[in-house]
Amino acid sequence: MHPFAILAPAWRRAPAAGIVAGALQEVEEIFRRQLRSDLPAVNELARHVERYRGKMLRPTLLLLSGLAATGREDESALTRNHKMAAAVSEMIHMATLVHDDVLDEADTRRRGATINSLRGNETAVMLGDWLISNAFHLCSLIGDTSLNVAFGHTTNTLCEGELLQLSRREDVCLDESTYLEIVKRKTAALVSACCQLGAQLSGASEEIQKALGMYGQHTGVAFQIQDDILDFIGDQSVVGKTLGCDLLKGKATLPLILYLRDCVGSSRVDAINVIESRDGIELVRRMNKAGSITAAQAVAENMIRAAQDALEPLPPSQVKTLLQELAMEVIRRDR
Amino acid sequence: MHPFAILAPAWRRAPAAGIVAGALQEVEEIFRRQLRSDLPAVNELARHVERYRGKMLRPTLLLLSGLAATGREDESALTRNHKMAAAVSEMIHMATLVHDDVLDEADTRRRGATINSLRGNETAVMLGDWLISNAFHLCSLIGDTSLNVAFGHTTNTLCEGELLQLSRREDVCLDESTYLEIVKRKTAALVSACCQLGAQLSGASEEIQKALGMYGQHTGVAFQIQDDILDFIGDQSVVGKTLGCDLLKGKATLPLILYLRDCVGSSRVDAINVIESRDGIELVRRMNKAGSITAAQAVAENMIRAAQDALEPLPPSQVKTLLQELAMEVIRRDR
Repeated sequence: MHPFAILAPAWRRAPAAGIVAGALQEVEEIFRRQLRSDLPAVNELARHVERYRGKMLRPTLLLLSGLAATGREDESALTRNHKMAAAVSEMIHMATLVHDDVLDEADTRRRGATINSLRGNETAVMLGDWLISNAFHLCSLIGDTSLNVAFGHTTNTLCEGELLQLSRREDVCLDESTYLEIVKRKTAALVSACCQLGAQLSGASEEIQKALGMYGQHTGVAFQIQDDILDFIGDQSVVGKTLGCDLLKGKATLPLILYLRDCVGSSRVDAINVIESRDGIELVRRMNKAGSITAAQAVAENMIRAAQDALEPLPPSQVKTLLQELAMEVIRRDR
Repeated sequence: MHPFAILAPAWRRAPAAGIVAGALQEVEEIFRRQLRSDLPAVNELARHVERYRGKMLRPTLLLLSGLAATGREDESALTRNHKMAAAVSEMIHMATLVHDDVLDEADTRRRGATINSLRGNETAVMLGDWLISNAFHLCSLIGDTSLNVAFGHTTNTLCEGELLQLSRREDVCLDESTYLEIVKRKTAALVSACCQLGAQLSGASEEIQKALGMYGQHTGVAFQIQDDILDFIGDQSVVGKTLGCDLLKGKATLPLILYLRDCVGSSRVDAINVIESRDGIELVRRMNKAGSITAAQAVAENMIRAAQDALEPLPPSQVKTLLQELAMEVIRRDR
């Protein structure tokens, strides 16, 4: 699948279409080169994992932020360090996908079988570790410890978000603010770091770095909300991964939280029974009727508006406009 | 348990006893401080994991190497960077323990329940990720990218060793040289890096760094062979962790490899039947009779002699003698 597949609609509309296409190819090359091993058994796994790559959202945002921060519109303004950092972000993301699939006991990812379903959980755990390790190793090769500190801090936060979510499994009392805290950490922290570091590597001011960091954070939260909505109402053949996981694994996500918030008395007892019986079809019917899915979509839309507003301090440019369109695409996607 | 518990015999005999005790306390403090989170759910897990600490073998070797490299015998010669790097090595090791327990489906570690048995595999996977991430974050705070590169390369290697071992599960044809390759990567690489980096941080010459790296590699291989022997013949109440895992998980380790090497014809078919039936008691009886356990111990002893010889280029000192004694302790331990 072409890396721009899900981003394509925004790309087609935007005059800056494909502006970082060459840089992204270089990112892919750096990525592939880092994951070469002298062991055939390891190389085979690495090749399988490459199929997980699809959206390249994080590298794309890092590169576009690197341009937007200074108002440049030509990818030749991007340095080798931008591209290496972009590859690091994708490798971290890939590691989380491999471990997420273990956590979710998922069988399908990007239309292919997951590592855990093919080779067992042990190999998936170790392969994820290898990807994390390679991400940090690649990051170190840039030779700027501030990047290692930033990515290290980001992955600490990411894991804390996952651990917080795990500690609240089967908790029907999880509220919206805790959900947003989880999502900020487990998803938005990395997206935000990409946008901020893209600007930092372009030598942008603190104000611009912060603006892009906020843009990334809001976009990341909206992205996760959309993912959680799709887990309920997506079409598995379109999304390309196992759906309905959150309910099965006892994870309360935004649509469900908003639905339960409005259920009181016997209707709440009734709702909890449906949840405990893991009857996804009935639950979605009820959430639709109560407007909880639409309400979750509205929260995501507000986040995207906040993301767009955050870019206000940036100099006007086609890339800035593209970033604003891209944010909207994140919640319009059906996969 | 006191961190020197298993090292105590060497310590008592050595005049340099306790020479890095103060530095190790600082290492523990750095370790604890790094693993503080603003989330109570995460802190609770961090406190549980601290109980996994026991031998502190890797930090101890890093610190002693830092002294032995220059012939110093006073721990005041160790820098803050030595202690931070030592804490990084222990954190990486701890992460591998948490993920190993998932891989081995182990219930007990250092006489306590494992994270996976208490909180499930998902939490154990994510907690291990958090520890790896924190190790790299802490390493970045030292501000010397060469350390990040070295530790990153080491953890790449470590994961490759585990992946190679996983790819050869249930393989009764695994030979001694592949076994040693696995062990070099999954265990010895980190021990070797500790010794080499200890010397590097003391400003030692390439030759001395290399000598200590070789000492660490041989010691690490012997350590793993001893671990694998104990998995067959150890006393669970002494070792403090679930034993017999390797046979159950289809991992061929040195005693078994040496036993199978000498079985031919119908006796080989017979031996494979015993292995496939997972009858550990019968297998150990046969391996003892065939002298395979003693043969594995002899391989480990040769490694230790090579480790001791590797220290030849170092200036004579009490710490050098202590390192040589410590290596022997690694294979004399019963836990």
